[in-house]
Amino acid sequence: MTLFSRHPNRAEILLVGNELLIGKTRDTNGLFLIRRLLDVGCVVGRVTTIPDELDVIRDAIAAAWARAPKFLFTSGGLGPTFDDMTLAGVARGLSRALDRPVPLECHPGALATLKARYAKREKALNAAREKMAHLPRGARPLRNPVGSAPGVLFEAGATTLYCLPGVPRELEAIVDLDVMADVRAKVDPVHFYQGSFIERGVGESDMAREIADIYAAHPSVYIKTHPRFREGPHVEVHVQSFESQARVDEVLAELATLVRDLGGQIDERPPR
Amino acid sequence: MTLFSRHPNRAEILLVGNELLIGKTRDTNGLFLIRRLLDVGCVVGRVTTIPDELDVIRDAIAAAWARAPKFLFTSGGLGPTFDDMTLAGVARGLSRALDRPVPLECHPGALATLKARYAKREKALNAAREKMAHLPRGARPLRNPVGSAPGVLFEAGATTLYCLPGVPRELEAIVDLDVMADVRAKVDPVHFYQGSFIERGVGESDMAREIADIYAAHPSVYIKTHPRFREGPHVEVHVQSFESQARVDEVLAELATLVRDLGGQIDERPPR
Repeated sequence: MTLFSRHPNRAEILLVGNELLIGKTRDTNGLFLIRRLLDVGCVVGRVTTIPDELDVIRDAIAAAWARAPKFLFTSGGLGPTFDDMTLAGVARGLSRALDRPVPLECHPGALATLKARYAKREKALNAAREKMAHLPRGARPLRNPVGSAPGVLFEAGATTLYCLPGVPRELEAIVDLDVMADVRAKVDPVHFYQGSFIERGVGESDMAREIADIYAAHPSVYIKTHPRFREGPHVEVHVQSFESQARVDEVLAELATLVRDLGGQIDERPPR
Repeated sequence: MTLFSRHPNRAEILLVGNELLIGKTRDTNGLFLIRRLLDVGCVVGRVTTIPDELDVIRDAIAAAWARAPKFLFTSGGLGPTFDDMTLAGVARGLSRALDRPVPLECHPGALATLKARYAKREKALNAAREKMAHLPRGARPLRNPVGSAPGVLFEAGATTLYCLPGVPRELEAIVDLDVMADVRAKVDPVHFYQGSFIERGVGESDMAREIADIYAAHPSVYIKTHPRFREGPHVEVHVQSFESQARVDEVLAELATLVRDLGGQIDERPPR
């Protein structure tokens, strides 16, 4: 089953930032977006981490767009400094994907917001600050209640692109303030259901054939086994579905019976 | 500067696993590989997380191969169950990338290892277990000292592919037992140097122009500013280079002078 690729509410995430690729910063933005999206019936089908490099950002945007996700998120690189080049890369990627020029242009509304923000702190709008108001043509700014750089929303065809800052508290604030409402308005929610248990005594390869049989009888679920090590080998048996919790529970019950029939013991039922 | 894309020892990582895309498991394998690789003078230019889906794995392998990294890693999906389909996807991806058939074939050495492993536990080699010995044609198995599924090494052209299990202790053991020696033998180490300080009083956009000037004078470094929030706004100024620690320290000193000239205060110098 292609649980993710054919999901009608499929999203992709591009995490932009050298700091992620040298292990300096551990990503939390991807995980935050994954959870928020699952909550409203969307799935994330791919997360790609790339450096702050113009050509790489351009190519990643064009490649993601070609896969036609319903939602495409970028995180990072919206700030005032020269290493913040996500929007420039996005504009080039969109130009390629849409086969029409999508240049960066100063957005009057974004500029006014920045001007007001810096005026409050008695600072002028220098070139570095103005840069944050240059959005891909046709995009609109998203309010950033805790930082300077606005988020960016761009729609074309069946895809909506959201460009968000890399600073987690800014990204999270923009998502909760405006992004999730936009996402919800665009999807018929497809809910995600899951459940699992942990057993010992039966190895993954002891029950692989029987699990394949159970899977064949319930094609709307996805069954995955994960080896776990806690004072000896255990296996977590995990069931995922976009159909219903009842179906997940039914399949879990069949799997538990299978494990007991093969001489294993159910140890734990983690909370959902 | 294209710190990552043009690095001679560039690696890519493909993390395969639905559990990563639903936030059930937080990746540690990518971070482990990033650190091991930096230690021997390699960089990771891209990390892509994808689901357990045959076509997605195939396409991701073919796309990564086309970018010609020196090293390509996959993590996850080597086990005995039907949801472990990484090697099948890899074989299809390699067939496409190399434009010749790279089918999965039973590897006699891998099969003998599996047979011996299960014989010790008085278990026969059923079809699910045998599956773990089916490697892409031309690949060789890598010893797994803590689990059943062998790692896989495949070389073609300028790229070496390592397929590793998703269970962190298995991946880490295989990497430290055999993979790193293979990597080291294939590279002239290009070391990575970095340093940073945290300041307050000068915002990112207050010094963007001056930082661009310092950057222009030292094209072998990469300067990145990160907003930090700790009892008020701070900025971490981070310098990266593949040239020398002396160059990093020189640029950091110039940046510290700049911050002080603009009325800021250096708070902290995190350890390297």
